[in-house]
Amino acid sequence: MSDTDRPDKKPDQAAALREALNRGAYQHAQRLLQTLHPAEIAALLESTPSPEREFIWTLVPAEENGEVLLHVNDDVRNALIRHMDPAELVAATEHLDLDDLADLIDDLPRAVTRQLLQAMDQQERWRLETVLSYPAESAGGLMNPEVTTVRPNVTLDVVIRYLRLKAELPDQTEQLVIVDRYGHYVGTLPLQTLLISDPDKTVAEVMDTEVEPIPVDLPARKVAQRFADRDLLSAPVVSVDGLVIGRITIDDVVDVIRDESEHSMMSQVGLNEEEDMFAPALQSFRRRTLWLGINLVTAFIASAVVGLFEATLQQVVALAVLMPIVASMGGIAGSQTQTLIIRGLAQGRLTASNAQRFINKEIILGLLNGLAWALVTALLAFVWFGRSDLALVMGLAMVVNLLLAAASGIGVPLMMRRLSIDPALAGHVVLTTVTDVAGFFAFLGLGSLLLR
Amino acid sequence: MSDTDRPDKKPDQAAALREALNRGAYQHAQRLLQTLHPAEIAALLESTPSPEREFIWTLVPAEENGEVLLHVNDDVRNALIRHMDPAELVAATEHLDLDDLADLIDDLPRAVTRQLLQAMDQQERWRLETVLSYPAESAGGLMNPEVTTVRPNVTLDVVIRYLRLKAELPDQTEQLVIVDRYGHYVGTLPLQTLLISDPDKTVAEVMDTEVEPIPVDLPARKVAQRFADRDLLSAPVVSVDGLVIGRITIDDVVDVIRDESEHSMMSQVGLNEEEDMFAPALQSFRRRTLWLGINLVTAFIASAVVGLFEATLQQVVALAVLMPIVASMGGIAGSQTQTLIIRGLAQGRLTASNAQRFINKEIILGLLNGLAWALVTALLAFVWFGRSDLALVMGLAMVVNLLLAAASGIGVPLMMRRLSIDPALAGHVVLTTVTDVAGFFAFLGLGSLLLR
Repeated sequence: MSDTDRPDKKPDQAAALREALNRGAYQHAQRLLQTLHPAEIAALLESTPSPEREFIWTLVPAEENGEVLLHVNDDVRNALIRHMDPAELVAATEHLDLDDLADLIDDLPRAVTRQLLQAMDQQERWRLETVLSYPAESAGGLMNPEVTTVRPNVTLDVVIRYLRLKAELPDQTEQLVIVDRYGHYVGTLPLQTLLISDPDKTVAEVMDTEVEPIPVDLPARKVAQRFADRDLLSAPVVSVDGLVIGRITIDDVVDVIRDESEHSMMSQVGLNEEEDMFAPALQSFRRRTLWLGINLVTAFIASAVVGLFEATLQQVVALAVLMPIVASMGGIAGSQTQTLIIRGLAQGRLTASNAQRFINKEIILGLLNGLAWALVTALLAFVWFGRSDLALVMGLAMVVNLLLAAASGIGVPLMMRRLSIDPALAGHVVLTTVTDVAGFFAFLGLGSLLLR
Repeated sequence: MSDTDRPDKKPDQAAALREALNRGAYQHAQRLLQTLHPAEIAALLESTPSPEREFIWTLVPAEENGEVLLHVNDDVRNALIRHMDPAELVAATEHLDLDDLADLIDDLPRAVTRQLLQAMDQQERWRLETVLSYPAESAGGLMNPEVTTVRPNVTLDVVIRYLRLKAELPDQTEQLVIVDRYGHYVGTLPLQTLLISDPDKTVAEVMDTEVEPIPVDLPARKVAQRFADRDLLSAPVVSVDGLVIGRITIDDVVDVIRDESEHSMMSQVGLNEEEDMFAPALQSFRRRTLWLGINLVTAFIASAVVGLFEATLQQVVALAVLMPIVASMGGIAGSQTQTLIIRGLAQGRLTASNAQRFINKEIILGLLNGLAWALVTALLAFVWFGRSDLALVMGLAMVVNLLLAAASGIGVPLMMRRLSIDPALAGHVVLTTVTDVAGFFAFLGLGSLLLR
């Protein structure tokens, strides 16, 4: 999708806000902040350097504080929390949904947590502990334990009267969950169905039993996949015994999908998506050092291979001129294969039963690529340096290298997966090291054999 | 997120299906297919090579055909459509929602489209044409023109009786849209509110006027941002005159978010996300040639820079050994800065008012990086080759190169954006060309000045 944006009014509001702050119109700024949603205020805070950021934070309406803290990245959240006293923090967070509070609670000072827990009744505390007992990246960590349940044997009319009596439903409730007398999952009753059906019918007559409940230990990524595949708005979560213990709503799933995509974009270059854009340079320096250090090691490995052929390079300096081309083409072709494998694995499209077909195809493709680009690069090398032996070395190296690139594009991600390392994270570094080493070795090795 | 998956039952179903096909148990296979949702069948088809794919397609229940066609990628869809006769295609697609049909219609043979249009009544045809008249990547392209609207002055009781009379609501309806007598947007009425409120109240008394309607020309990416920021399940779409002309539901938005993330992952290595994993090698070869060709041109540019210093390389062959290190470190550091800029621009976090602060920080960081890695690499070069002049060249080149890398990491995406090229697509190739050229030039240039 193109990033050439059409004008939208939100950036204008942010600009208007900054302009109001600059000319000291704080009341006007406060009114502008009131028109923004918490996620939009969070974006504004993330895109404002300190100390303006802390100042804007004091202008944010107190009732929005909790929601805004939920939406900012970890670095910014910690900085904002440091500027709040315990009473403010308790006030900001005590009205959050339990699943949201669970996401935040690790970042709160211990005194605040203790106070929050004391203010809760027995049932709420128990529910919070339930959510906290599951890994954040699982259905249990995503779910909200507040579910409106009804029994299958009552009439719709009774359900409607029950809801009017309750006078409030959890946010984003678009279906009720049907449970038996022991709390086991039976089905769901969409509010739509409740509204349009004959009120004298029973829940059992109109309920939907198609929705499969989500096991509490399903990984978040698979929860997201299921929501997307089946166009779900919400789904009940059940324990191993089939008891309904919570529900997951699509808004949390959307966050999972967005976070995952941001995480993979950032981690490819060794960055953390929770980092503050305006962190002090020294702090960013420390964080990015590891990645540059790893890269230096891999670059030295490639250099060491070149070093093996110092004598040959001395004799035929054209090899030094052409060697970046061989390595670079291998890196690109290998990344294409690797990206397809990583996607196939992540989406479950690549399985034991079809992998061989895919691998065969990519190897044949590597050979085709090798032959085609061998011709092109050999010709260019001949035109440039006027040496047919150099052109031959170039062509042969290209065939070898592009075949090896296809093989590494397949082998590297599969090996990393076997080692339980995320291939999307470290795959690129490992792959280019392999293709660099192989490319330099093939090209300079052939050069040392065939040229003088 | 780690890709080391826990066991899930879906892959087993796919495996069970393949196993059933292998032993010729077609009825069993057909029953298994009936338990899968259309998106899951689509995934299965995408992960099965031809001709098994076409055979499975014949076993898919006819009533699922339309939905499955919606979910497979373009290549696979075209292949499946080629195997269907017009009558089958009409049957498969005539019951799709209008917004889904609009996504599919370009891929259908003309005879099928004509037949579909003839089978529609005047109003449906007009609605379809409305959706088709907007770009697919805009709110208009995403919306479904079927909206259930009510007037503000009626009582909830009347609304409930009206809905029971209709006896059916469009899929994923969780709120009604309130319009005035001319069809202008007034507010929304969540089904929740309708259910729990006193039935004698009027719509106007309980409706929600907080939901901002979505302008029909808002780009899809911004629609997705708004849904995510405000936790929306659906939102009304209005024309420039404020008339309600459709609604967008979260399931379409989830598809936008997922497609965008897949698109950016694939396009970084010059691949198209609509490509069939099992396309013939020759077809993939043709598609990937362009990207490898572009890369060859950029690699030759970098080589040409190296070629300028042939005489120096002849004298000091250690330069050839070390030069990949300088270029590689520049590429990595530059990508980190570039990735932050691309994300900042895409999320609207980087604006005219804060860009300078961010740029200053990254330049300071480039200097810090340059100084630190200059020390490390100079030391390593000294230990390796025992030449202090070579170590000095290495260190100086590293400072220059990492400063230039920061500058290009900022400049390249900003320049591409100005040229209306998506920096996420071509940014990496352009950036590494710049850092390679700069790295080789700095290192070899300093070498030719200071070494002999």
